[in-house]
Amino acid sequence: MTHHAHSDRLLTPTRRQWLGWAAAASCAAAGALPGEAAEQSSPPPKKAAPRPFHLGLASYTLREFPLEQALAMTRRVGLEYICLKSFHLPLEASRDQIAKAAAQVREAGLVLYAGGVISMKDEAQVNQTFDYAQAAGMKVIVASPVPEVLPLVERKVQECDLRVAIHNHGPGDKTYPTPESVYRRVEGLDRRVGLCMDIGHTARIGADPVADVRRFADRLLDVHFKDVSAATPQGVCVEAGRGVLDLPGFLAALIEIGYSGVVAFEFEKDEKDPLPGLAESVGYARGVLAALP
Amino acid sequence: MTHHAHSDRLLTPTRRQWLGWAAAASCAAAGALPGEAAEQSSPPPKKAAPRPFHLGLASYTLREFPLEQALAMTRRVGLEYICLKSFHLPLEASRDQIAKAAAQVREAGLVLYAGGVISMKDEAQVNQTFDYAQAAGMKVIVASPVPEVLPLVERKVQECDLRVAIHNHGPGDKTYPTPESVYRRVEGLDRRVGLCMDIGHTARIGADPVADVRRFADRLLDVHFKDVSAATPQGVCVEAGRGVLDLPGFLAALIEIGYSGVVAFEFEKDEKDPLPGLAESVGYARGVLAALP
Repeated sequence: MTHHAHSDRLLTPTRRQWLGWAAAASCAAAGALPGEAAEQSSPPPKKAAPRPFHLGLASYTLREFPLEQALAMTRRVGLEYICLKSFHLPLEASRDQIAKAAAQVREAGLVLYAGGVISMKDEAQVNQTFDYAQAAGMKVIVASPVPEVLPLVERKVQECDLRVAIHNHGPGDKTYPTPESVYRRVEGLDRRVGLCMDIGHTARIGADPVADVRRFADRLLDVHFKDVSAATPQGVCVEAGRGVLDLPGFLAALIEIGYSGVVAFEFEKDEKDPLPGLAESVGYARGVLAALP
Repeated sequence: MTHHAHSDRLLTPTRRQWLGWAAAASCAAAGALPGEAAEQSSPPPKKAAPRPFHLGLASYTLREFPLEQALAMTRRVGLEYICLKSFHLPLEASRDQIAKAAAQVREAGLVLYAGGVISMKDEAQVNQTFDYAQAAGMKVIVASPVPEVLPLVERKVQECDLRVAIHNHGPGDKTYPTPESVYRRVEGLDRRVGLCMDIGHTARIGADPVADVRRFADRLLDVHFKDVSAATPQGVCVEAGRGVLDLPGFLAALIEIGYSGVVAFEFEKDEKDPLPGLAESVGYARGVLAALP
């Protein structure tokens, strides 16, 4: 566990909760058969200094692949946390189907920490989403709720002790274009309703991911990590390190605020053959984390 | 060109020569058709601070793939320099065949800076190797010459103005197990006879790649970059960042000595499907270079 090495100045309830989840997650991961996928796997990185957060995958990256293959690819690049998109676990799946998929994730040695991005347009969709997340054992719902359902979302968050991380989607999103637009909607709500900062979309609309991490630190619940070819609406996803984002500065800011969630890679390029670009991006982030003080 | 930003304190003839080569290489690369392989390629990284060296590939990594595919894979991970192993350009190829392969490399937008590792056991093999390298336009021969031919190698280096970088091969190599064993053989020779430091084999025999970069800086002509699972003879190649090597320390040492050659990735794992591990390793090194001061 890398959590303990970091300053405790941000040991909010949120942070304590993550510590508990991480402990539970370790137990879950220990249930995987030793040596599974050993032929293509390597020991996890050792060189990085202790960091307060985890690296994971937003499974949208692997949207062209069935769940089993997506899990193997996630393991191959050495990630341990996964957020499932509906391609890999349909929202309308039965509780049995959900339990089966969750077991499959666990048996692959991964932690199913979240689901999404999930739209929530009315009461029925909010209820369905929370049932889905609870059945899957997820701790975070990455979501795009219409503002009208936010009071219900807050009540459900309190009832179920889940988190809802609202995703900023850039220029095309009228409600949640920027991290700030999310923050303004949630700042009066329970602290478990917060932000999933997509740093690509943040840059595409002209906001600054590094500054926004600091500004919205108290509501940062999830991160979609990527690089983009331009800090304009025309910018598209590229391998981390090949675009215009200041990713070392961004990761340094996450360390600085004691971010204790997951940094989830969302590699949108090469959807039919994403593994090399995903691997390059994961390697890049690990290299930055190894070299940062 | 990133060379100019670095301190000139190590502007040896060797370094000046590299500057010239780099200029020539730019012209060569400019001959590639714009937009080639555009579908899977991304702009080269911009974030890294200026570094005095280049990233490249030791084509042994792609030994299971024909030249054309190997070149496309090299481009896909954004490398610009390549050292061809005999799988991709046989030593006994005719001058026409060699010229054709060299043109193919150039047309892929890559710089064919070296060939090897090449064994040289007698005069005939030395002559053949220098003819081969000259016909291909290579600037460096990565080699394992028996000590008896070193006087001839030195004469040929002077005649042809090529460099010979002798590769340390670890515990199994009686003549060149360590960087030091290479250095002792070449320190009295022309400075164009030097060392290709394979950092995996360096660690596998218990030597320290970071210390040895500093000790043998004046003869460091090429680098095989990798990570290994253990600093013992049993250590095997793993994705950069997942093994035991201090790769940030190693890259920082290269910057410190003003190394101006190529850092060539040699990823020996997953030979049938090496692209993800190679990409992860390249990403890792770029991340380290982006985050180092």
